[in-house]
Amino acid sequence: MVNDIELNKRQKHILEIVKDHGPITGEAIADQLNLTRATLRPDLAILTMAGFLDARPRVGYFYTGKTGSQLLSDKINKIRVEDHQSLPVVVNESVSVYDAIVTMFLEDVGTLFVVDEHSTLVGVLSRKDLLRASIGKQELNTIPVNIIMTRMPNITFCLKEDLIIDVANKLIEKQIDALPVVKKTNKGYEVVGRITKTNITKLLVALSNDEIM
Amino acid sequence: MVNDIELNKRQKHILEIVKDHGPITGEAIADQLNLTRATLRPDLAILTMAGFLDARPRVGYFYTGKTGSQLLSDKINKIRVEDHQSLPVVVNESVSVYDAIVTMFLEDVGTLFVVDEHSTLVGVLSRKDLLRASIGKQELNTIPVNIIMTRMPNITFCLKEDLIIDVANKLIEKQIDALPVVKKTNKGYEVVGRITKTNITKLLVALSNDEIM
Repeated sequence: MVNDIELNKRQKHILEIVKDHGPITGEAIADQLNLTRATLRPDLAILTMAGFLDARPRVGYFYTGKTGSQLLSDKINKIRVEDHQSLPVVVNESVSVYDAIVTMFLEDVGTLFVVDEHSTLVGVLSRKDLLRASIGKQELNTIPVNIIMTRMPNITFCLKEDLIIDVANKLIEKQIDALPVVKKTNKGYEVVGRITKTNITKLLVALSNDEIM
Repeated sequence: MVNDIELNKRQKHILEIVKDHGPITGEAIADQLNLTRATLRPDLAILTMAGFLDARPRVGYFYTGKTGSQLLSDKINKIRVEDHQSLPVVVNESVSVYDAIVTMFLEDVGTLFVVDEHSTLVGVLSRKDLLRASIGKQELNTIPVNIIMTRMPNITFCLKEDLIIDVANKLIEKQIDALPVVKKTNKGYEVVGRITKTNITKLLVALSNDEIM
């Protein structure tokens, strides 16, 4: 069973020639290999179809810089936030830490977004933030969430048009579990979605099941 | 720029013929299309190289059931836990909930594994478990973690030889953030690793950067 695009020796040789001498015509490649253009036709077709080479009329073949698996990563690099985001769960900045914890359990999410009276994003609360607060000495019923939340401009957010892979990179880099998906308004940013490591994990499962086109 | 393997009309026609009549020889395919075997050679080569068709000597071509994107899913479906796991963080079953929370912060993990005196896995503690306990009425310094942990046999675990995608499916299905990677011993299971949604997110980033072979 052929699972991957495996190139034969001649195809690899052609790739090397085009890398070194491209753009180069089919005839010139054939000359270098002491073969006829007709003999090379299937190999050139395969290399072009598979995306290793590209051809322009009256210019010749050139190397696209892509390896077999780069063609696969191209697919991942086209997937956008809007197709994989979840609904956001928000609390007002005046609610208590205790109420935020209760909301987190009721809604079964790991991150809450905090908004002001204009529904504008002002903060983010993670399970870690709430756990830290809960072992402190303060009374959870009396501290408002805006005391313990991460606040603007330290919030990492994304837009629905952004690439999922950029979000995945931000989640790793900032060591956070979720990003708000926002829309710019005249007051600031409105929260329109949530994207989490769970969404990313589901995406990998969907890719493995060949459910993403 | 050709980013994906795009089939032309004749190649799609060949695929249909092989789906319906395979295994079928190149000559028989050529007959159905009123073309010569030589004319079809590049198309059959492309379809075979790209993994859509497979060929067996003296049998002919048959359909592998794979689409272009199935080649990506094939790649994902070969990746194993051992290449992407993290180090586990364990606590003894006799430590207090308070000490477990402190360990979670010091080690900066979202899940702790609980072991007995033989280093055998007996429980799992998530941030959610600890947060739930922390808003209860009990004194966190006096409750041992074995009162609040998820315990065997309710722990979902995996082996280092398991496929990452099976772990990803379990994380989604069980709505958990991490699994212990275990090794069977004569006492039960020893914890040898940890695999989380963060590991899965990093894997997607690595796939998108073409870092996984």
